[in-house]
Amino acid sequence: MKRHFAELSHAQWADEKYLCVGLDPDLSRIPDVVRRGSASETICAFNRAIVDATADLAGAYKPNSAFFESQGSAGWDALKETIAYIHEVAPSVPVILDCKRGDIGSTNLGYVAAAFDDLRADSITVHPYLGKEALAPFLDRADKGIFVLCRTSNAGSSMFQDLVVDGMPLYQKVAQSVSNEWNVHMNCGLVVGATYPQELRSVRTIAPEIPILIPGIGTQGGDLEQSVKNGLNAKGEGILVSVSRSLLYASTGDNFADAARSYAQTLHSEIKAAAIR
Amino acid sequence: MKRHFAELSHAQWADEKYLCVGLDPDLSRIPDVVRRGSASETICAFNRAIVDATADLAGAYKPNSAFFESQGSAGWDALKETIAYIHEVAPSVPVILDCKRGDIGSTNLGYVAAAFDDLRADSITVHPYLGKEALAPFLDRADKGIFVLCRTSNAGSSMFQDLVVDGMPLYQKVAQSVSNEWNVHMNCGLVVGATYPQELRSVRTIAPEIPILIPGIGTQGGDLEQSVKNGLNAKGEGILVSVSRSLLYASTGDNFADAARSYAQTLHSEIKAAAIR
Repeated sequence: MKRHFAELSHAQWADEKYLCVGLDPDLSRIPDVVRRGSASETICAFNRAIVDATADLAGAYKPNSAFFESQGSAGWDALKETIAYIHEVAPSVPVILDCKRGDIGSTNLGYVAAAFDDLRADSITVHPYLGKEALAPFLDRADKGIFVLCRTSNAGSSMFQDLVVDGMPLYQKVAQSVSNEWNVHMNCGLVVGATYPQELRSVRTIAPEIPILIPGIGTQGGDLEQSVKNGLNAKGEGILVSVSRSLLYASTGDNFADAARSYAQTLHSEIKAAAIR
Repeated sequence: MKRHFAELSHAQWADEKYLCVGLDPDLSRIPDVVRRGSASETICAFNRAIVDATADLAGAYKPNSAFFESQGSAGWDALKETIAYIHEVAPSVPVILDCKRGDIGSTNLGYVAAAFDDLRADSITVHPYLGKEALAPFLDRADKGIFVLCRTSNAGSSMFQDLVVDGMPLYQKVAQSVSNEWNVHMNCGLVVGATYPQELRSVRTIAPEIPILIPGIGTQGGDLEQSVKNGLNAKGEGILVSVSRSLLYASTGDNFADAARSYAQTLHSEIKAAAIR
């Protein structure tokens, strides 16, 4: 059966799963117990352990390509192997490739081939700066999820994203464009950091339906309860609350996988509690 | 001797070299005569032939990572091998990795390692959307060139880039920020398409000194003469006029390298003529 991001996501939400596990394998922080002969083997072993520990809790996985690319082509192989492992162990859980791409249209075909054909991701993150026309190769993929950066979680995201255009901040203009114009195939999403819960509320008002990927929980200090309340759509779904470092490195000891699972369970419960309140 | 992008670029301009050869290896268009056993070998053979044919004319090379990533990890190896070959054959010519990256700060460290340590590029292209704070890992590399997307060459680039903020289009705000605030290490550049020569003129006025990478000549229909005149700084330097497809595929016959060289010679002469007029 052909995988379809929107269908996979809806099934996860129907199962009350809103937690997105971000896979940011940082070699300097991976516990000794999973270290192998090469960097890429270590990364794969670590990711497998994290996936095994969270497969029944995660509503999505989000490998960030930067952590793999830093290891060169072996890192690329590790990324591909990690995604294949998720498809094997948790076939109903969608994989969002967090690679923040965006070039002119003809060139984006290469990124589409890389993300969806070679790596077999179900979804991707993209920059909005080049506009809808350039992103057509992504947007044309009705079977994939296209998450457009809107209000990013970093401390300095206001620099351009808060500039006022047409009477609203740029990030709201992006949200409006994506929700009203880009979402022809019902495959678009937005990225809004949990570090900006009020901005998240305004994005949900502008874009009442579409999925919002919400990074910034944990290390970055995002507000989980407010993010859940402000991010859910009227159906009580449509969010993926993403956590990476604080889950992956909850313990750096031999018990790291148990610690990651325990942390995921806590978040899973907290998100569910916030969602029904 | 440590490579330093700004020094390499200045030496090229002193030698009247403003042409940037974009390496967009499209497997469907690579001539049969350089086809090898695997896609990555074919890409490397093609790139080597193009580099050999243009090494004395190019002021920079600009491999676009999308065309390599589409081939998976073998493509990554081909990208690395291509950059190594340029360093070997044309050691004074800087290599700009056109990969249009941009994530939160801690994650960008991975892209820095990938581009500069693993692939050994001299320069990179980045998206501005996350702001200066996020891009610090790039901007901190004083030895590298950091080209920030400003007014991109694609037909639909006006969508966000022309929105008026603080009394000027967003792309001008980006140019102003990069020129006035981000260029602490004198390592910043801007990307402005040759398809928008008037916008290029305004960017040069706002950013009087810094290098401008100007794609869009050739297939995209950019205006070469106006781009050169509007892009040069007061010293008569500071531009890299980039051409990719129309040079790479000037001929699809056995004579493709000669045709590419001939096309490069014509452009080189036209740019020089426009620069002194």
